[in-house]
Amino acid sequence: MAKAITLLESTRTDHRAQADELLTALLPHTGRALRLGISGVPGVGKSTFIEALGLYLIREQGLKVAVLAIDPSSTVSGGSILGDKTRMEQLSNEQDAYIRPSPSGGTLGGVAEKTREAMLVCEAAGYDVVIVETVGVGQSEIAVHGMTDMFCVLQLPNAGDDLQAIKKGVMELADLVVINKADIDPHAAIRAQAQITSSLRLLAMHGNPDHDWKAGLVWRPKVITLSALKGEGVDEFWAVVSEFRSMQTGNGRLAARRERQALAWMWERIDFGLKQAFRQHPEVRALLPQLQQDVAAGRIAPSTAARSLLAAQTGPAQAAAN
Amino acid sequence: MAKAITLLESTRTDHRAQADELLTALLPHTGRALRLGISGVPGVGKSTFIEALGLYLIREQGLKVAVLAIDPSSTVSGGSILGDKTRMEQLSNEQDAYIRPSPSGGTLGGVAEKTREAMLVCEAAGYDVVIVETVGVGQSEIAVHGMTDMFCVLQLPNAGDDLQAIKKGVMELADLVVINKADIDPHAAIRAQAQITSSLRLLAMHGNPDHDWKAGLVWRPKVITLSALKGEGVDEFWAVVSEFRSMQTGNGRLAARRERQALAWMWERIDFGLKQAFRQHPEVRALLPQLQQDVAAGRIAPSTAARSLLAAQTGPAQAAAN
Repeated sequence: MAKAITLLESTRTDHRAQADELLTALLPHTGRALRLGISGVPGVGKSTFIEALGLYLIREQGLKVAVLAIDPSSTVSGGSILGDKTRMEQLSNEQDAYIRPSPSGGTLGGVAEKTREAMLVCEAAGYDVVIVETVGVGQSEIAVHGMTDMFCVLQLPNAGDDLQAIKKGVMELADLVVINKADIDPHAAIRAQAQITSSLRLLAMHGNPDHDWKAGLVWRPKVITLSALKGEGVDEFWAVVSEFRSMQTGNGRLAARRERQALAWMWERIDFGLKQAFRQHPEVRALLPQLQQDVAAGRIAPSTAARSLLAAQTGPAQAAAN
Repeated sequence: MAKAITLLESTRTDHRAQADELLTALLPHTGRALRLGISGVPGVGKSTFIEALGLYLIREQGLKVAVLAIDPSSTVSGGSILGDKTRMEQLSNEQDAYIRPSPSGGTLGGVAEKTREAMLVCEAAGYDVVIVETVGVGQSEIAVHGMTDMFCVLQLPNAGDDLQAIKKGVMELADLVVINKADIDPHAAIRAQAQITSSLRLLAMHGNPDHDWKAGLVWRPKVITLSALKGEGVDEFWAVVSEFRSMQTGNGRLAARRERQALAWMWERIDFGLKQAFRQHPEVRALLPQLQQDVAAGRIAPSTAARSLLAAQTGPAQAAAN
């Protein structure tokens, strides 16, 4: 399994053709796992929660659990949220657990693509639950939401925090909000639960296609409290996840979500490929620095510069058609 | 002026070359106007406000005022927020006012591009203030923010409304929030002012490069109340706008903002052109329907499909390099 993931993560051209063959061969054996996204800012207790959840799923539910991560900061620092082997020590010693740190290097899009492909390998290898973890940095939550069946946001029992999540557009993506560390101040946790529930209701006014506050047959985002450190509430969390999975499978939303995600992933990679080919084109590289200066200085209109650069890439024959 | 704008809005290929020449010739005469973005949901009183502001600027300040609009719904309905000639009747009768409805048809990106180019024509024609209006629909606020020096959000004195604006990421773009219709319930207006001010402070924690809540030399978003219908507060609004302009000119942020906007506009048009050329490529058009079905059905990995399509566009020679 590690070999397959390493092949998929390789940037060598000859490896890529093999990797595509591997993916196509694996694909019929994927899709049966539950893909669970877990997001939350540093300090919210994600590792403790994922370890408690993973141990519960393996020991109490008899499931196999894979944990992947997307950490855009690992691109910069070389470090990773899951690089530290002392994290989730108990879980990593379980035979039915597989833990893989965030791929490092490259763009968030590249990191996300490698994680998506690793998820398919885990599924083909028979893991029942694939947890994709991310820190609350940049666009990483959106990437994780875009590859999972259910997206959970961990929050501290601190009423101000939810505004940041709303601002970043993360809260409206949440299928489930988990207020962790509820044991420290149970009253604050209950206040935060009420406030976030009311925010979610307002946010739902403009539609997330996976949610519906009016119809009874579609999921309404929930807010629960728990204490991962004390192991309290993990069973309730799993009950809510199971309820979500059952409802969204029954009403067809889970299949629709995966279809949207697959097509969005394809187009994202196409966009990336188009931009990369454009920036690497010799004519574009020759013209770009001067045109960028001219645009910044107001000597040439941005639309005119864009047309010149597009014409440079396609060559004189096609330029007339633009 | 109307002829120039019509030429810029033409989609004919031979017109486009002339339009580029015209833009390049106009460019040295642009940039002296204040570009003011006004956003707000239907019913907030935008037309009344813009008419009151326009009349004030012409009659009290001796300025020439142009009003442009971006209305993505006009693409669908063929109608437009400024299509109705009875709107802003007094302002449209002023010699020093120019009012142009939203271009209709095409994508929001296309509509925004035409409006940006019309703005340059207005500036070259000597208008001192160019107001770009938009309804609170889709991504249009972001487009207007991306082409103006100062972005103002109109709100009703209704405390719940700001959450929608925060959710859509509009509130954090606001340089100035205007609570209109304050005469109806002055107490509610003052409460809304306090609440939005506190939200803006929290939102400012992650940086909008044009704002700074710590440093004294950079703009802090303000919240004011007024009644456009009664004409109360328009002078105060203009005083705040003038203060903004003077501060952001002095500290260099206005010039930096325009530079960022011009480069972002160029890249946006390049992205659009790349996608359009891709979708129109005969090989891509031949392969796309089947590959999309295969990806949606889980028969082929999205990354594999993306690579196949990119290879189809570039041809077999370059495909090996991907």
